[in-house]
Amino acid sequence: MIKSPLEKARMSYQPKLPNVLKGSVKLSEGKPTESVANQAEMKTLFPHTYGLPIVEFVAGEPKSYPAVNVGVILSGGQAPGGHNVISGIFDGLKKANPASKLYGFLGGPSGLIDHKYKELTVDIIDSYRNTGGFDMIGSGRTKLEKTEQFDKGAEICKQLNIKAIVIIGGDDSNTNACILAEYYKQKNIDIQVIGCPKTIDGDLKNEMIETSFGFDTAAKVYSELIGNIQRDCNSSRKYWHFIRLMGRSASHITLECALQTQPNVAIISEEVEAKNQSLSDVVTQITDSIVERANAGYEFGSVLIPEGLLEFMPKIKMLLSEMNDLLATPEFQAIVGDEAQRNFILLKLSHENKATFESLPLFIAKQLMMDRDAHGNVQVSLIETEKMLIEMVGERLKRLKECGAYTGKFSAMAHFFGYEGRCAFPSNFDADYCYSIGYNASLLILEGKTAYMSIIRNCCKSAEEWIAGGVPVVSMMNMERRNGKDVPVIRKALVELEGKPFKFFVSKREEWAGANDTFVFQGPIQFFGPSEVCDARTKTMMLECDK
Amino acid sequence: MIKSPLEKARMSYQPKLPNVLKGSVKLSEGKPTESVANQAEMKTLFPHTYGLPIVEFVAGEPKSYPAVNVGVILSGGQAPGGHNVISGIFDGLKKANPASKLYGFLGGPSGLIDHKYKELTVDIIDSYRNTGGFDMIGSGRTKLEKTEQFDKGAEICKQLNIKAIVIIGGDDSNTNACILAEYYKQKNIDIQVIGCPKTIDGDLKNEMIETSFGFDTAAKVYSELIGNIQRDCNSSRKYWHFIRLMGRSASHITLECALQTQPNVAIISEEVEAKNQSLSDVVTQITDSIVERANAGYEFGSVLIPEGLLEFMPKIKMLLSEMNDLLATPEFQAIVGDEAQRNFILLKLSHENKATFESLPLFIAKQLMMDRDAHGNVQVSLIETEKMLIEMVGERLKRLKECGAYTGKFSAMAHFFGYEGRCAFPSNFDADYCYSIGYNASLLILEGKTAYMSIIRNCCKSAEEWIAGGVPVVSMMNMERRNGKDVPVIRKALVELEGKPFKFFVSKREEWAGANDTFVFQGPIQFFGPSEVCDARTKTMMLECDK
Repeated sequence: MIKSPLEKARMSYQPKLPNVLKGSVKLSEGKPTESVANQAEMKTLFPHTYGLPIVEFVAGEPKSYPAVNVGVILSGGQAPGGHNVISGIFDGLKKANPASKLYGFLGGPSGLIDHKYKELTVDIIDSYRNTGGFDMIGSGRTKLEKTEQFDKGAEICKQLNIKAIVIIGGDDSNTNACILAEYYKQKNIDIQVIGCPKTIDGDLKNEMIETSFGFDTAAKVYSELIGNIQRDCNSSRKYWHFIRLMGRSASHITLECALQTQPNVAIISEEVEAKNQSLSDVVTQITDSIVERANAGYEFGSVLIPEGLLEFMPKIKMLLSEMNDLLATPEFQAIVGDEAQRNFILLKLSHENKATFESLPLFIAKQLMMDRDAHGNVQVSLIETEKMLIEMVGERLKRLKECGAYTGKFSAMAHFFGYEGRCAFPSNFDADYCYSIGYNASLLILEGKTAYMSIIRNCCKSAEEWIAGGVPVVSMMNMERRNGKDVPVIRKALVELEGKPFKFFVSKREEWAGANDTFVFQGPIQFFGPSEVCDARTKTMMLECDK
Repeated sequence: MIKSPLEKARMSYQPKLPNVLKGSVKLSEGKPTESVANQAEMKTLFPHTYGLPIVEFVAGEPKSYPAVNVGVILSGGQAPGGHNVISGIFDGLKKANPASKLYGFLGGPSGLIDHKYKELTVDIIDSYRNTGGFDMIGSGRTKLEKTEQFDKGAEICKQLNIKAIVIIGGDDSNTNACILAEYYKQKNIDIQVIGCPKTIDGDLKNEMIETSFGFDTAAKVYSELIGNIQRDCNSSRKYWHFIRLMGRSASHITLECALQTQPNVAIISEEVEAKNQSLSDVVTQITDSIVERANAGYEFGSVLIPEGLLEFMPKIKMLLSEMNDLLATPEFQAIVGDEAQRNFILLKLSHENKATFESLPLFIAKQLMMDRDAHGNVQVSLIETEKMLIEMVGERLKRLKECGAYTGKFSAMAHFFGYEGRCAFPSNFDADYCYSIGYNASLLILEGKTAYMSIIRNCCKSAEEWIAGGVPVVSMMNMERRNGKDVPVIRKALVELEGKPFKFFVSKREEWAGANDTFVFQGPIQFFGPSEVCDARTKTMMLECDK
């Protein structure tokens, strides 16, 4: 395996730790916690892990720890910094007792169930420090939720003398980490479970989790590309660029990229839903900016679109729901040919959904009928929303032209950025933050904690001042309806319309929609230069931190 | 206009100059040159600019230069470093005589014709140093080729007392710069013309032009993204990524990115043409790698595809040529509906072209019929070749599965990278190289040269050792057939199948096609770190330089 010059240089980067974790520590315990909602039910569901206190590491007397074997799992989609969480755990364990061992379960949670693992030696760890990707041990999307799975996990842990499992994942994976911890407690199985908050989408966030790892890097990679494209359209002055960005269940990425790059238009799904906006409303918003800029002589610009937009539109959601039912019928499945299928759908749809369906460009209507997932459902994530909007905006402008309200020329380019950012080299922030989360997780294990998430706070300050500790996972949970059942889950963090980042965006967007010279060009992530370039936090974090 | 932290930091970067240009210089002249071919015709066409010597700057006695006004034009597509060429010209002129002025013609060559310009003051120059984009003065694609245009140019030059024009552009723009220089000489108009070699495509290259500016940066941006995607597929182990890269008339970008990232497959158009390969051959090559990797347990990988691929396939070229004729007929234009249009085409096409047309996926056949340019021609550049290959490879694998030759699972993602790299912040190399080209251009002007291209050589060495001088543009030209006419043009540099970069690629590609752990992750361009990270040259240049 050939390492690039940057990869070699980054191998020798020593991630920063909070000052408090550099020396000997002891745990300071707060008051018992409650879950964010449904306290009574949660208490019943989590009798052994409900009500635990928030804990924080403070300076303590030197002490010796016994050797302990730990297993680590990467769960779900990749996010920059995963390897640093693992190297943090490794270094923390080895510093406390060099006889401790770290095992990596391979290919995600299924590695635990199927007993696929490898011991992570210093050679392996060293060759992945500060790199992107999850390729050290692989990741996977198997959900840990059945007791048979838990028992299979306990089996391999017993075999390898593993006393604790660290699960690095998003909201679902951390929910399952907590259920697993509770189960082992109930069964008197001596295995601790610690979660670590990962997701580039940014939707695993709350009062205690200031940011999920990977968000900083991914948003910066996308902002680099958006900036390059904006500089291009500023130079050639002839294209509108419609850019769809990863983030299906929340628009944090799009909001952060908008704050970093100041595009002419950025659509935030949460606002669309709150205002019950239709596709036509979004088209109007974009068209307004295009017309305003054309009148000022700027026939070019940029539009950011969150991947999950369509799923936040009440009317589209209604349409999809009815279509999923229709597409599942044997009647539909017997029909051959686009036209016939379309006619069948139009015939059967309710009045309101029919109107929505007819308002969609033909190629999108076709995509809705064609691309279905294993369950036969419409795969909204495959819909090229950016191309759909280009077509609809083009049609609208044509009509405006006919009535003389627009005299410009509209040419557009479509882009989608997702996979480009998930496995980038972690930024200095993510490298430090992830390493600290991992190191901190090892200390939570050594202090005997289970059902906790490893938490680093005060992140807008320099790493030395970071606060390290643990938060009981149950305290972040509530009951939500999923697939027709009420289940305990960590509450997903959507973009808050009353939050400072969104409000700041709202205060600026009119200016950005029309004026020229508002684009900002962030350039590529830097690792070695001046601190204001290399260690900058996300705009979202800085605005939230500015209390 | 808000400047990002990186933009601010880059403003204070002082690009490196060759040692020879730092002090006083004089010109050392070589022997008269000949054009690369068609010498007799070229001599007739360029009576005043044929046979000029190659010139090189060497250390000289201090001397004083008169003030001179210069105009600069950015021509064609954006390439990282354009602003540095301009700041190099500015600094060179002002150092020689602070009373000199630099004017920027706005929006490309049309600025010269339409008399749109602005004086480039130190404030303007300073706020664009080391930035990407062409937005300081804009660019455009108007071709300078008619004598009326030349006369309009002379008019504004007279008005502003401009004694020299610098044209920053690709092969066509430099060809036209030479024609302009010759015209002014013929007419005894005292305006010098100097060209500067720009193109991210890398096809303006020869013995004297070691690389065109922008190629280094653009290839590095694309390689960053390809590496991130490869790390992603290495981690999730479930997708093949098909990545189309900018570069219509040559595959230098794809070759360079392949050398940097070591994908499983990279298609080089020049080889496809030389071997008279069909789409089916390319599909076979890709499928072979997929099957080989699936057998080894790797159901993921990467494929790089040059944008211009289809235009290099003899059979597709034949088909396109016949289709362009058919689509232009009133008969075809009267037909309504995809199916009817397709049937008409199938009926009319020659036997061989019909077979080619039928071998294309339906959505591509439709694109060929639908998306036509202003002249009614098929717009090959809009064809999503990467999606076409995904579909064709998928079909092929299905057939292999039916006969038991393949048992894997094939899921693929499509990407296209072009606009992401054209306006990136120039790498240190491009920042230095462009600044030197511009500074050198100012000296060529001061030494009274015209019809020269500003040339910096020895680029694989450190900037201090670079050789600076000028090459007569006519010496790079030959006669080629364009739009049915023989015209003088700079010979385009395609990927040489006997060249070291391609041969190195060929020596490695079998290994890359099958083995795992061959991907290389270059990460984002760095400006401030260790020299091996920040100042690395392209692989192409290092291989070519290794004589």
